[in-house]
Amino acid sequence: MHADLAALVGAEHVACDVVLADESRLSGRAAALVRPGSAEEVARVVAWCYERDIAMVPVGGLTGYAGGAVPRVDPGGDVIAIALNRLDRIRSFDPLAWRMEAEAGVTTATIARRARESGLLFPPDPGAAEQSQLGGNLATNAGGPHAFKYGVTGRWVLGVEAVIAPGELVSFGGPVVKDVAGLDLRALLIGSEGTLGIITAAWLRLVPAPEETFVVAAGFPSIAAGCAAIDAVRGSGVVPAALEYLDGLSLRAAPAPFVDGSPELLVVCEAESAHERDELLAALGDGAVAPPPADVWRWREGVSFAVRGLRGDKLSEDVAVPVERLREAIEGVLAIGARVGVEACSWGHAGDGNLHASFLHGSPEGRERAEAAAAELFDLARALGGTASGEHGIGLLKAGQLSRQWAPAAVGAARAVKRALDPKGLFNPGKKEP
Amino acid sequence: MHADLAALVGAEHVACDVVLADESRLSGRAAALVRPGSAEEVARVVAWCYERDIAMVPVGGLTGYAGGAVPRVDPGGDVIAIALNRLDRIRSFDPLAWRMEAEAGVTTATIARRARESGLLFPPDPGAAEQSQLGGNLATNAGGPHAFKYGVTGRWVLGVEAVIAPGELVSFGGPVVKDVAGLDLRALLIGSEGTLGIITAAWLRLVPAPEETFVVAAGFPSIAAGCAAIDAVRGSGVVPAALEYLDGLSLRAAPAPFVDGSPELLVVCEAESAHERDELLAALGDGAVAPPPADVWRWREGVSFAVRGLRGDKLSEDVAVPVERLREAIEGVLAIGARVGVEACSWGHAGDGNLHASFLHGSPEGRERAEAAAAELFDLARALGGTASGEHGIGLLKAGQLSRQWAPAAVGAARAVKRALDPKGLFNPGKKEP
Repeated sequence: MHADLAALVGAEHVACDVVLADESRLSGRAAALVRPGSAEEVARVVAWCYERDIAMVPVGGLTGYAGGAVPRVDPGGDVIAIALNRLDRIRSFDPLAWRMEAEAGVTTATIARRARESGLLFPPDPGAAEQSQLGGNLATNAGGPHAFKYGVTGRWVLGVEAVIAPGELVSFGGPVVKDVAGLDLRALLIGSEGTLGIITAAWLRLVPAPEETFVVAAGFPSIAAGCAAIDAVRGSGVVPAALEYLDGLSLRAAPAPFVDGSPELLVVCEAESAHERDELLAALGDGAVAPPPADVWRWREGVSFAVRGLRGDKLSEDVAVPVERLREAIEGVLAIGARVGVEACSWGHAGDGNLHASFLHGSPEGRERAEAAAAELFDLARALGGTASGEHGIGLLKAGQLSRQWAPAAVGAARAVKRALDPKGLFNPGKKEP
Repeated sequence: MHADLAALVGAEHVACDVVLADESRLSGRAAALVRPGSAEEVARVVAWCYERDIAMVPVGGLTGYAGGAVPRVDPGGDVIAIALNRLDRIRSFDPLAWRMEAEAGVTTATIARRARESGLLFPPDPGAAEQSQLGGNLATNAGGPHAFKYGVTGRWVLGVEAVIAPGELVSFGGPVVKDVAGLDLRALLIGSEGTLGIITAAWLRLVPAPEETFVVAAGFPSIAAGCAAIDAVRGSGVVPAALEYLDGLSLRAAPAPFVDGSPELLVVCEAESAHERDELLAALGDGAVAPPPADVWRWREGVSFAVRGLRGDKLSEDVAVPVERLREAIEGVLAIGARVGVEACSWGHAGDGNLHASFLHGSPEGRERAEAAAAELFDLARALGGTASGEHGIGLLKAGQLSRQWAPAAVGAARAVKRALDPKGLFNPGKKEP
């Protein structure tokens, strides 16, 4: 195996018997990790695996929260991990056309930086920007705070280049903004967690960056009061670029330097003009402040780590509910924690009804309780008309959730599509499975 | 057949032997046209057809330009047309949640009007708003002028309810803004022209309507000068809500009352604040004007009919090219017309590189020349890195174009997905086929 793979990508780019883990704390062993240097090399590796019935898992920055890039090894089977990090070229960048073609291994931060240097914005900001890669963002259709106004990653993808079974390099979409000539297999691949093929590059759409941004924030003494303020923002006529919240325990883990006291809910939103800022200040009421945006987003990026630090570890989920059920969901997370006996908190993308609920633990026994709490959380999300994953994906962590959420005929359709594009079931087995 | 269908939907909702046509001027005969009164009735009709190997074509407002709703009858086969116009309920509308659930037969205008009454905007504006229906907009993933800023129809769809083979009513997505639990079969169905199933309803996302809009327009003495102005708009830092153009002959057919002289290219864009208006006026230069938006959009809606009136009829296409190739495409349309010997003109969504090229004719012989010109246009679009359809779809009119545009392996993937979801090939046969 090693010699064959070395012949395809170079011996220095093959490692044997590698253990891979991501932010879910799940881990798995790959018989080999290969690092192809081009899309054509990815195609050759996939063809080699597909011919031999060997399973594959694509690997990006390993910043996922659901184990999507963690090998799942079936008894008697091997998994080859295909790392995309050497596909790190920006193939083209045309600022006047608001368009960039980037390979799957380019980091989120690099894309954002290159765009910014020309006054443009690549809006998706799923976090871990220096580590996460475009391919992983596409595989999960990653979100982030600014998805509220700008939409998730897929909204900014004009076309994808991918290797599909049995090892063919193809493109769906391209440098064109609108294209309805074929079925939207571009959209189908985005968010498929590598289960239908491996994305090697994408044409991205950019937009002019706002000249200035403003953050408006306010703390509230109760979840109810904070959710009423979120409603006031939605009713203000402004579409904030981001509309975020943090609950009380999250704030005690990561105190927001720009609010006083100990609020039970913090609301943070972003405006793109002074007029919008003033409207949002009015919507959030008397205690609202307008701290410097860079400070706020830097602090916000550290919340997840600060919460993890409270008890040593945490299990984080990312359910989403209809926005009018947000308060029930935030309160429900706390109720689940109390019932199961784990500390619980949540923060997230209020405007999208997308909660990052965390159950804290610091021991194997605590992890079990956290998992029990997560199971209850999925039930709650479904009961509120929501979903088990708003932006992290299913991965290994949430295997089986879809069948609880979709009708059997809908699950059957998803299975049929998977079989049609991956008849041998070799692309990232065990992930996103109904 | 009639008795069976009458038992399913009521005798008064079944018509036998019906000829259907749309704006493509293509027509076809359906053995029966049924008008189910609910999604459940659609499911029963589909189940009845699927069991008997009878083909189906979903029918909306018949305002399409590609024959997507025109029955294609194979020798010895029957086609049942399923009209969705009785599914005309807005099932729910929650203004504070910026969300509406509407059935497939609701007209575009009704959705826009209901949203507006609560200060909200449903951005897709594909035209023929009083006739076109949501289901058709979804089936084609329709665009329109405001797609430049806001994106095409699919961007505003949180979930679809659809009847899939062999007659199952399912939902993909729902009232949730973000959902990555399953493969994105919602996006796959959107734009599939009814070839994978029949959409019966959708959850739509709305946004607060801008407080005010402004139109900025300017005429230019040459295509080159107009395209340079379009570049200036793209470089201005403003994202106009729309960025449209019309060429000289289009303007002679439908004179724009707000510009003087006889420009060879007119550029029209929409701003959503006085600041944006001023930036756009500066970008378009000395001759730019700011006429009342309602007047401009009413005039713009009539352009297609005015151009048709020049010679009695026209063949209209909607190729899209990378935006930096727009000038070559506009000039190429004229060159094709001169070469083939038909009057040619174009207008369209400049910001999206999406051209509505029209070849005028008034006789069967003229139609043949127009079709020859269209074939050359598709070649030109491909040569420029573009697509045969930006927003109208493939329908019957452009059958076979995809195989010229996609690699064989990509076409194979599309075929595999079609077979997986419609193993008997009964959903709208002949449309969107590679």
